[in-house]
Amino acid sequence: MDIEITRIANGLTVVTDPMPQLESTAVGVWVDCGARNETRAQMGLSHMLEHMAFKGTARRNARQIAEEIEAVGGYLNAYTSREQTAFHARILKADVPLAVDILADILTSPAFEAGELERERQVVLQEIGQARDTPDDIIFDHLQSVAFPDQPMGWPILGDEDSVGSFAREDLKTYMAANYRAGAMTLISSGAVEHARMVELAEEKFANLPRGESSETLPARYEGGDLRLSEPHEQAHVVYGFPGIAGNDPDIYAAQVYVTALGGGMSSRLFQEVREKRGLCYSVYAFANAFRDGGLIGIYAGTGEDEAAGLSAVVAGEMASLAETANADEIARAKAQLKSGLLMGLERPAARAEQIASQLLTYGRVLAVSELTEKLEAVDVSAVRRFGSRLMQAAMPALVALGPVNKLETYSAFANRFGAVGSRAAE
Amino acid sequence: MDIEITRIANGLTVVTDPMPQLESTAVGVWVDCGARNETRAQMGLSHMLEHMAFKGTARRNARQIAEEIEAVGGYLNAYTSREQTAFHARILKADVPLAVDILADILTSPAFEAGELERERQVVLQEIGQARDTPDDIIFDHLQSVAFPDQPMGWPILGDEDSVGSFAREDLKTYMAANYRAGAMTLISSGAVEHARMVELAEEKFANLPRGESSETLPARYEGGDLRLSEPHEQAHVVYGFPGIAGNDPDIYAAQVYVTALGGGMSSRLFQEVREKRGLCYSVYAFANAFRDGGLIGIYAGTGEDEAAGLSAVVAGEMASLAETANADEIARAKAQLKSGLLMGLERPAARAEQIASQLLTYGRVLAVSELTEKLEAVDVSAVRRFGSRLMQAAMPALVALGPVNKLETYSAFANRFGAVGSRAAE
Repeated sequence: MDIEITRIANGLTVVTDPMPQLESTAVGVWVDCGARNETRAQMGLSHMLEHMAFKGTARRNARQIAEEIEAVGGYLNAYTSREQTAFHARILKADVPLAVDILADILTSPAFEAGELERERQVVLQEIGQARDTPDDIIFDHLQSVAFPDQPMGWPILGDEDSVGSFAREDLKTYMAANYRAGAMTLISSGAVEHARMVELAEEKFANLPRGESSETLPARYEGGDLRLSEPHEQAHVVYGFPGIAGNDPDIYAAQVYVTALGGGMSSRLFQEVREKRGLCYSVYAFANAFRDGGLIGIYAGTGEDEAAGLSAVVAGEMASLAETANADEIARAKAQLKSGLLMGLERPAARAEQIASQLLTYGRVLAVSELTEKLEAVDVSAVRRFGSRLMQAAMPALVALGPVNKLETYSAFANRFGAVGSRAAE
Repeated sequence: MDIEITRIANGLTVVTDPMPQLESTAVGVWVDCGARNETRAQMGLSHMLEHMAFKGTARRNARQIAEEIEAVGGYLNAYTSREQTAFHARILKADVPLAVDILADILTSPAFEAGELERERQVVLQEIGQARDTPDDIIFDHLQSVAFPDQPMGWPILGDEDSVGSFAREDLKTYMAANYRAGAMTLISSGAVEHARMVELAEEKFANLPRGESSETLPARYEGGDLRLSEPHEQAHVVYGFPGIAGNDPDIYAAQVYVTALGGGMSSRLFQEVREKRGLCYSVYAFANAFRDGGLIGIYAGTGEDEAAGLSAVVAGEMASLAETANADEIARAKAQLKSGLLMGLERPAARAEQIASQLLTYGRVLAVSELTEKLEAVDVSAVRRFGSRLMQAAMPALVALGPVNKLETYSAFANRFGAVGSRAAE
């Protein structure tokens, strides 16, 4: 990897990651602004802005944006997360200048036309409906709000009917002026690209971005608790959450190995115990979400109404057991999976660009693959057990259950499986 | 692309597609057997066999299969479609022999142990529950059964509670003996591979596959009709289907350009009219599924209860309008999208292996990229209009609607927008 980084005069960071053997490029702008930058009234505004960027600029209407990129076989999309909003394109190499021109156009002079806003509001309301119709999607929004209640880190990214219904053109303009500043934005390209040319393009196209850095956000404050919604689903969808760690916490590598060994593949403890041995679930997995100043470790499982009865005990039991008996073989397997995932990701330009964005957000620099693999290699059995033990101390897990969940054990029964050793001994 | 193909002594086809710049490989076995090979009582048996292949062999139990592949950072998975079942791995190049050994082991000497079958039955029932909890997934199973009723082409791939509940060990063994013959199977690898070495591995590991070719299947017989299920979803999920064409029909390229222009991207007619202009949907798109002897052209839309009222008229209107007024610009855009999709797919080993499998199934040979792009290039405005007009003649569209669908226009009102010109004129 021969990554080059230049900060141009207004503060925009330009990163190029050449993959000379390719005929195409992934190019995008990552903005350090997402749901956690919003006040309660602004809930969903980052996402609405992401949508509205495509709805016309001073030079192009929405249809022209779509037609220009697709006329050259390009693909333009965007996503909003809690800490970032990304606008990205996949494009053949000859058309990189066009992609940069369009990205710059939608990010520096969006029209936010009132009629378009009215229509896009309806589209976003449909998007909210679609998410709600997908229990194994919406459950993660609920988890986030249970883990981080009454604070920006817990808002649903899409907002809700009330907030989405309230946004006016001025709100978008004010929010953009406050958050879409050059110092909070990074133009990243992986694939068939040359750094000097990208810097030149950035200087030309993004010249009028306002100066300024990322705006401050409130700290993430984990609380935990539970939410159960008896909805008419076939499955009981259950997610368990525990306070995690920030992306730049040195323990993040141990956390990744831990979740992989717990529920990251077919040989993981949860897959073996919950699916292979007990046949309780089709989907069961663990994950580690990391933010700038915190994180969330979680486990998702989809199971039947009756099968839900024993689920929580098995999940807590596997967590306790991994914290005590994690062994060298399973840790080696988890590390091998994480390393090959890294190496295979390097073969895909879009995955590379996204990883660069994530590292810049987390560390303020791009990590060499060798640095990442060394850090993974350094994780040993005791580090994983230590991390697992720390999770077992959680005073207040987060638990969300949707569907036929009446047989799932109570929150307090589940929470009592965790917490200080003293309180567990006293049960 | 320097693809090499060898048929080894027992009839197994070995295809290698070297990508010398890569450090990893996608390798898998594609079997010409899927849901359409099943009788009604066997509904879901192909998929159950796919699951049970991973549950132990003469040499390895289920846990060993998982542990061996994941110990080297590999990833093993499988899927069942209507005409094929695929077992595939992503693996670093040094471990390709291990992946081939495991694939051969699970495909030539699965144990189908009775206790494992009982547990896996529960897992598949959970998978069915999960699919039913995802309306924009399960709706395509319903579409298939409405389009191709009472015939293997219309079975749900997962089967149902009754069929899955009935499978015994003998059923798996008999079905495998009838369908998993060397002549019906292809070992495909894309990435860091050498053909001579793969042939050698195949000869060593797959030697005891039974000889024989693909088994016959009943012809696909399109009928159409409608199914509405008033379920408590947020959105009305609606899918419209029309008789399509086989993958080896020379019109398949016109069909692909047609669906791309109709609903394949942001600049497509449906996206512009349904989402951008009317704000009715978040998701709306068109697709062309092709089988060996037929196909299905479809449109999916997720919308609100009130918004559903006008949806069918708009969809039919856009189809009629595209058939009459398709223009050179939009056809050029659709072709550019399809071509760049092809070129970008070439950068991903798993996508390449899958495309090779699909071409071998459809054409009995691998097509050069230049041949595909030439065929796409040759599609002109009149070919697209012709294909669109053919769809407008459909006597019996297929229509499935799930959710709050009481305001959607009736099936007969929708069907009357199609059919012979005479009958339309007579309305």
